[in-house]
Amino acid sequence: MNDDTVVGRPTIEFWYEFASSYSYLAVMRIEALAAAADVRVEWRPFLLGPVFMSLGWNDSPFNIYPPKGRYMWRDLERLCARYRLRLTRPSVFPRNALLAARVACHGQREPWIGAFSRMVMEANFADDRDIGSEQLITELLSSLSLPAAALIAAARQPAGKEALRRQTERACELGLFGAPSFVVGEELFWGNDRLEEALDWARGRSTLPPLG
Amino acid sequence: MNDDTVVGRPTIEFWYEFASSYSYLAVMRIEALAAAADVRVEWRPFLLGPVFMSLGWNDSPFNIYPPKGRYMWRDLERLCARYRLRLTRPSVFPRNALLAARVACHGQREPWIGAFSRMVMEANFADDRDIGSEQLITELLSSLSLPAAALIAAARQPAGKEALRRQTERACELGLFGAPSFVVGEELFWGNDRLEEALDWARGRSTLPPLG
Repeated sequence: MNDDTVVGRPTIEFWYEFASSYSYLAVMRIEALAAAADVRVEWRPFLLGPVFMSLGWNDSPFNIYPPKGRYMWRDLERLCARYRLRLTRPSVFPRNALLAARVACHGQREPWIGAFSRMVMEANFADDRDIGSEQLITELLSSLSLPAAALIAAARQPAGKEALRRQTERACELGLFGAPSFVVGEELFWGNDRLEEALDWARGRSTLPPLG
Repeated sequence: MNDDTVVGRPTIEFWYEFASSYSYLAVMRIEALAAAADVRVEWRPFLLGPVFMSLGWNDSPFNIYPPKGRYMWRDLERLCARYRLRLTRPSVFPRNALLAARVACHGQREPWIGAFSRMVMEANFADDRDIGSEQLITELLSSLSLPAAALIAAARQPAGKEALRRQTERACELGLFGAPSFVVGEELFWGNDRLEEALDWARGRSTLPPLG
């Protein structure tokens, strides 16, 4: 519990996956933009794999459809230049993000969730490091002065595994089909491009009747 | 030939398909934005069907993947509200745009291409009319005081059919995988969201070395 739980403060659910390239952009940007807009962020790490499987894809669509993949990497490069984010194309894509996602899910209401998420993303997309390795996750948590071994152990308990599995199921139920996605009330926004619009919606600066 | 052919004026290739929902937004917006940026637009109508077939899709991905489709219609509604564009969800999607695309391809260097393209798009996405019908295309061309019968006949000549076929092949060669897309020199931009960025690129306000 912290002061973010003030009743009535505009809130955005932020759905992201550590292996997702466009999630990298949103993870790096959301905390500062949401703070400026006075919108509370509910961090919702999940796994895209099961979501993609439900759509019939057994790999990232950026790998299944080469023209989409070629475009994405160039688009990401342009966007990173615009946002002044570092980028090194990961030597493995998509990377196994299971452990990172379990730890993030376990800590998604903790004050360190933003900093931890950014560190994982930078390890993957700026430093080309293996975010699937326990050693790396330990290093990142420790650098935040967190009890790495205890957090990793908790995230790997049956309850920790189950929490991430349920959260991923919830993503499917919400109609998510990619990441990053933002949920504001009944409204779904997909893609890093929609972050500003989703924050506007949370602030009540944009409204529209539900689709009939 | 018109004054747009001045050598050295920044140019953007605008690739669009009359059945494509996000192309509707870009067709309605591009002429005013490009004029304000002093960028010349080369209109490139093409058919998404063969492009999608080359990716293994025999229908719009918005139909193949229901969560993507549900999201797209709501997103389109929000964007139309923001851009102050009318929207009526077409009772048939995607509509057969072959005749409209042939006529547009035949006239893509003519001064009426922008006005004609906007009228076809509004017929499809604002008025739910069948843009595949020769009667409708005749009506739209006539309302622009153009010789409808002659233009339709020319677009249906073997040379007219071949021009659209070659243009669609060119789209695949350029790495296009959806519409709208924008090409500025060697740079590809995909989606209505990227229109402003593509115009910036054409103006030389954004540059970045090619992806290594």
